[in-house]
Amino acid sequence: MIVPLDRAREAEFRAIVDGKAKPPGALGRIEDLAVRLALITGRPDPRCDRARLLIFAGDHGLNQSGVSAYPSDVTAAMVATFLAGKASANAFARAVGCDISIIDAGVAADLPPHPHLIAYNIARGTANAAVEPAMSFSQLDQALKAGAGLAKSCNAELLAIGEMGIGNTASAALILHRLAPAPLDDCIGLGAGHDAEGLARKRAVLHEAAARTAATEPREVLAEFGGFEIAMMAGAVLGAAEARVPMVVDGFIASVAALAAIRLEPACADYCIFAHRSAEKGHAILLEALGVEPLLSLDLRLGEGTGALLAIPIVRAAAALIGEVASLDDVLAGRL
Amino acid sequence: MIVPLDRAREAEFRAIVDGKAKPPGALGRIEDLAVRLALITGRPDPRCDRARLLIFAGDHGLNQSGVSAYPSDVTAAMVATFLAGKASANAFARAVGCDISIIDAGVAADLPPHPHLIAYNIARGTANAAVEPAMSFSQLDQALKAGAGLAKSCNAELLAIGEMGIGNTASAALILHRLAPAPLDDCIGLGAGHDAEGLARKRAVLHEAAARTAATEPREVLAEFGGFEIAMMAGAVLGAAEARVPMVVDGFIASVAALAAIRLEPACADYCIFAHRSAEKGHAILLEALGVEPLLSLDLRLGEGTGALLAIPIVRAAAALIGEVASLDDVLAGRL
Repeated sequence: MIVPLDRAREAEFRAIVDGKAKPPGALGRIEDLAVRLALITGRPDPRCDRARLLIFAGDHGLNQSGVSAYPSDVTAAMVATFLAGKASANAFARAVGCDISIIDAGVAADLPPHPHLIAYNIARGTANAAVEPAMSFSQLDQALKAGAGLAKSCNAELLAIGEMGIGNTASAALILHRLAPAPLDDCIGLGAGHDAEGLARKRAVLHEAAARTAATEPREVLAEFGGFEIAMMAGAVLGAAEARVPMVVDGFIASVAALAAIRLEPACADYCIFAHRSAEKGHAILLEALGVEPLLSLDLRLGEGTGALLAIPIVRAAAALIGEVASLDDVLAGRL
Repeated sequence: MIVPLDRAREAEFRAIVDGKAKPPGALGRIEDLAVRLALITGRPDPRCDRARLLIFAGDHGLNQSGVSAYPSDVTAAMVATFLAGKASANAFARAVGCDISIIDAGVAADLPPHPHLIAYNIARGTANAAVEPAMSFSQLDQALKAGAGLAKSCNAELLAIGEMGIGNTASAALILHRLAPAPLDDCIGLGAGHDAEGLARKRAVLHEAAARTAATEPREVLAEFGGFEIAMMAGAVLGAAEARVPMVVDGFIASVAALAAIRLEPACADYCIFAHRSAEKGHAILLEALGVEPLLSLDLRLGEGTGALLAIPIVRAAAALIGEVASLDDVLAGRL
């Protein structure tokens, strides 16, 4: 049950921010974010100290048709890198002070147990969406539920989602195409890197997948096109909104998961903070479809939650603005 | 003595970043920043943990002619707020994990001694630049030296500059006009806030000041137009470059100080990291004159170093990328 923001309190929170010891409006978008954090949490002093990034990993049957320049093994290798604390996401998380959870949503490998790996593997990769549905509805529901449960149970004041999954810009492009909606070719980008031939192959495979089904209903679209990590991220967005925890959304893939969650439950949109404008082609279409402007624009296209991590200090600053800064009245009266 | 960056090592550092466990270029501007931090420090593992923001406060004789919507007392009131830990800059600094030093560069008040106030007061505010030079060359040199000394002595791995000074967008506009150079009216913005009448008065006063002197040489321009906090920030930029410490530059006023430092010593430009694109009108001209694109664009126009603080985690992430992330070779070979 997602509670829509109580817009009746917006004026109250806006007045608090306007009354801080600074010219009104001088902190620009941070002020808007501060008001939103107050609305999300229902508090004039929202806290975002305990932050956690959930990185969902999964493999894609689409990769059997050659949609990526990298083999699926790389997904498992990067999960091992996350667990060893040596990926970009780990380095960024240390830099900003954020915890990470690594979730095996559906990696196509037998990952050895690890104290920091959450083993939710729904299957060893999705089926190949170019020839059949990526997952069953039962698998989809399992993924949505797992993601929501994680978001609700991890006792964070601020959540973020990121992902790792070779081939997942292909799944994401198909989902975006149906849920924005937008022409398929406009949704297809270079992913982790493609030459002209690779991009042409990716396009052909995705047109094949799109021709197989006319699905436009969000659950159907997720089941048809995958992947497990995208569905689990969508669940996490829904769970965060249910728990009234702000959710920082990383780049292209994570935003597509958020789009699916928003199409399922429009009220969760207000709980999402879009972190950055990805360099991946389809992201601009998605942001326009949702009418949102992300906080950062740094030409990132890695995923892993790296962009979300860079936005976390900005969100914390917004919370600190409304919660900690003196009012101008108090400053001028010497009440400090 | 500022050492220009050793560009001969750029390819070496770039190769390290390119070889990290991610598609080449996937971290966009963070990769460029990582290479620059390595060049600044001369190390493949730059550290930016110990960060310090220097907030310089000063008053402006120009305010006697009505260039600001706020009275000069507000400067001292805000210094008290910084010292009480209750300004926006304090809240943001806690949110990102950065130390702050507050420097009285030339506030027009007898500030009581405080353990956290660095009392470098050169004079109780500058002279009114509309009718005479804002400061003497001896005062200018004192300010430049104080700023440089602070930057060199505070043992930070990452420095940032910010300011507080009612009327200082007026001084900054005059300096920008002469040092960009650019037409004066293009350099004049709303500052902390002006109605049409206030803006017209600010324009008239600044034209009066500009008509008084034809100065274009950077020391002359600083002495003519002030203020003490701007000159001290320029000194801090020079000192940071001398100490090979990266310097995060806040918004309009801090950038004008950096511009003056760069015109004095062009080699210090490579040590400056411009934090954000301010909403204050003249900032775009300055950024274009220097050919730089800041990291953030959040419609901030407060000063105090608030924008610089928001950029600090991004700089730390860039340092962590080159210093801490595994190479793709190591990941693929299972060497973690």
